[in-house]
Amino acid sequence: MYKRHLTKPDGRRLVLYGRRPLLAEIEAPSPLRVGASSSPHLRWHPLRGEWVAYASHRQDRTFLPPASYNPLAPTTGAGIPTEVPAGDWDVAVFENLFPTLTSNAQEPPVAIVATSPGEGACEVVVFTQDPATSLGQLPLVHLEMVLEAWTDRYLELGAREDVRYVFPFENRGVEVGVTLPHPHGQIYAYPFVPPLAARELAQQREYLDRHGRGLLEDHVRAEIEEGTRTLYVGPHAAAFVPVCARYAYEIWVAPRRAVPSLPELTAEERADFARALKTALLELDGLWGRPMPYVLVVHQAPTDGSLHPEAHLHVEIYPAYRMPDRLKYLAGSEIGAGVFTADTLPEQKAAELRAVEVSLE
Amino acid sequence: MYKRHLTKPDGRRLVLYGRRPLLAEIEAPSPLRVGASSSPHLRWHPLRGEWVAYASHRQDRTFLPPASYNPLAPTTGAGIPTEVPAGDWDVAVFENLFPTLTSNAQEPPVAIVATSPGEGACEVVVFTQDPATSLGQLPLVHLEMVLEAWTDRYLELGAREDVRYVFPFENRGVEVGVTLPHPHGQIYAYPFVPPLAARELAQQREYLDRHGRGLLEDHVRAEIEEGTRTLYVGPHAAAFVPVCARYAYEIWVAPRRAVPSLPELTAEERADFARALKTALLELDGLWGRPMPYVLVVHQAPTDGSLHPEAHLHVEIYPAYRMPDRLKYLAGSEIGAGVFTADTLPEQKAAELRAVEVSLE
Repeated sequence: MYKRHLTKPDGRRLVLYGRRPLLAEIEAPSPLRVGASSSPHLRWHPLRGEWVAYASHRQDRTFLPPASYNPLAPTTGAGIPTEVPAGDWDVAVFENLFPTLTSNAQEPPVAIVATSPGEGACEVVVFTQDPATSLGQLPLVHLEMVLEAWTDRYLELGAREDVRYVFPFENRGVEVGVTLPHPHGQIYAYPFVPPLAARELAQQREYLDRHGRGLLEDHVRAEIEEGTRTLYVGPHAAAFVPVCARYAYEIWVAPRRAVPSLPELTAEERADFARALKTALLELDGLWGRPMPYVLVVHQAPTDGSLHPEAHLHVEIYPAYRMPDRLKYLAGSEIGAGVFTADTLPEQKAAELRAVEVSLE
Repeated sequence: MYKRHLTKPDGRRLVLYGRRPLLAEIEAPSPLRVGASSSPHLRWHPLRGEWVAYASHRQDRTFLPPASYNPLAPTTGAGIPTEVPAGDWDVAVFENLFPTLTSNAQEPPVAIVATSPGEGACEVVVFTQDPATSLGQLPLVHLEMVLEAWTDRYLELGAREDVRYVFPFENRGVEVGVTLPHPHGQIYAYPFVPPLAARELAQQREYLDRHGRGLLEDHVRAEIEEGTRTLYVGPHAAAFVPVCARYAYEIWVAPRRAVPSLPELTAEERADFARALKTALLELDGLWGRPMPYVLVVHQAPTDGSLHPEAHLHVEIYPAYRMPDRLKYLAGSEIGAGVFTADTLPEQKAAELRAVEVSLE
């Protein structure tokens, strides 16, 4: 993997990753000459015991690009500069123009609850230069490069004093609020371990203490042994609809070994993880012959300075639809009580996904 | 309050509530002669440490009512019977035809995670006979009757052995998945304390132990003292955009005293609570001159046999829009990490709501 650090004219960070050496003359473009001003801060939610992030941005309203403008396509000589340069890169990462978390957060306002600066980072990960493909359609070697870029971000962001959790994710499709079709994801680097990660880690720690083995390690083994919901079982990784799926077509992808975080995957494990992930994504798109909107998240060990032997790296994919024309709405029971309700069984949905033929290359 | 228990031809429960005596000859209708078969069950989600509810229903596919059919309007002589009778009732409650939780749940299947019968209840609460009004538009005396019906359901369902938490809520609008415009809500009676309620109770218990006062009681007092986000402050209840709002126009409504549950409200407190709730709902609808879609939930003490001095009854309202044409999507950070991000400040949004003129009657 080749890597190049650049700085945009407005001061933001850009990192390019490639399978081939990157030419020396590449420069980092930006659609804006001056950075957007923002003063993100956190407020404590006393009833839920969690932080809420606020960022009221002031945007330069004179910047009104045409509808055809794609900020994630390589900059060409003509037109408004984009966020990424031309050149022989495979994956590009840059700081979000309107970050919810940032390394230069100001002092937070005083409030009737605790407040804190919105420290951390919000990065955009451009998966490819091709605006018309998707994460799942990327060739395996390119998908592995995305995993390597995530790995590098975990190491670089995680090494920062103000970052305790590095969280790569992809929101895909207008149904989950994404208007930009160019294949891309995001990374949030939080100054705390976020509540859902903390919850999963606590469950895993308790299991490890009690059984001396990993919770997800045992779960993956049980899913493979039962075999009715598995989508991919390789030597080092597996993809399956979990027995306790909350979304109809929910999929988990995990290494079979209890690898705490991306950097601890061996090259063979990462390659197999890419095959498992690609299988899952292609089956979702093949199900109804159209792109499945989803939220895809990576859960792994915090970067809070402690050892996390309980953590087991995995991807969770939450597809937006439960039927071809029915979205899964998160309503009273889900967002007010925290209880997911499903009117289909994971076994049925896994069978539908398993019936999709995919080719890995 | 007058109340009548009835049984539908398919065996389901119907309860009518009225301000005037209910006529003796009322009979409970049902669109179906035979109940839908369902075998809801729960599966344990080991990573999150929570139950997920599954109910794969078999519906009588010969029942295809016309688009104009409103199952929540009073049954007339002509056409398919609805779920509620004609008569002088104000609020009607009946068991959901396709329950996720039920008192006659079967044995759950054996799985690689713990399973449990889907015990409990799922009820529909018809707020009024008028299909063209809304919860917020109901006259105060009628809104109080809804609160009394919720109170009665809390007592009746909460007394059951298999019910540990009674959860009234309203999903409103196609944006949150509701296709039936007739004003109605639901009640889920869970066989466990649901995760979000448990989390709030734990936070409140810790605060009570440390300070000897209620967390929400102190928070409501602080909101009233600061005064910049309050929408209604009465002698016994308040409505406000909380300082830590997760949704742009999120509103909490609470009695000022630390009342654990609906039955412990005095008549004066309930009347003031209704005024606070009505103010909040009318301000949401008045904001852009159109009905605001939302999820409204009631949090209160569990019915698990323990005393809950830490619990403080309150309503949380999560409006779906953050701008007139922009929904708040729950995406990576919210549903994958548990961190809400907002690009507006609660103070700004409260000011917009406070500028709406409402009349209480």
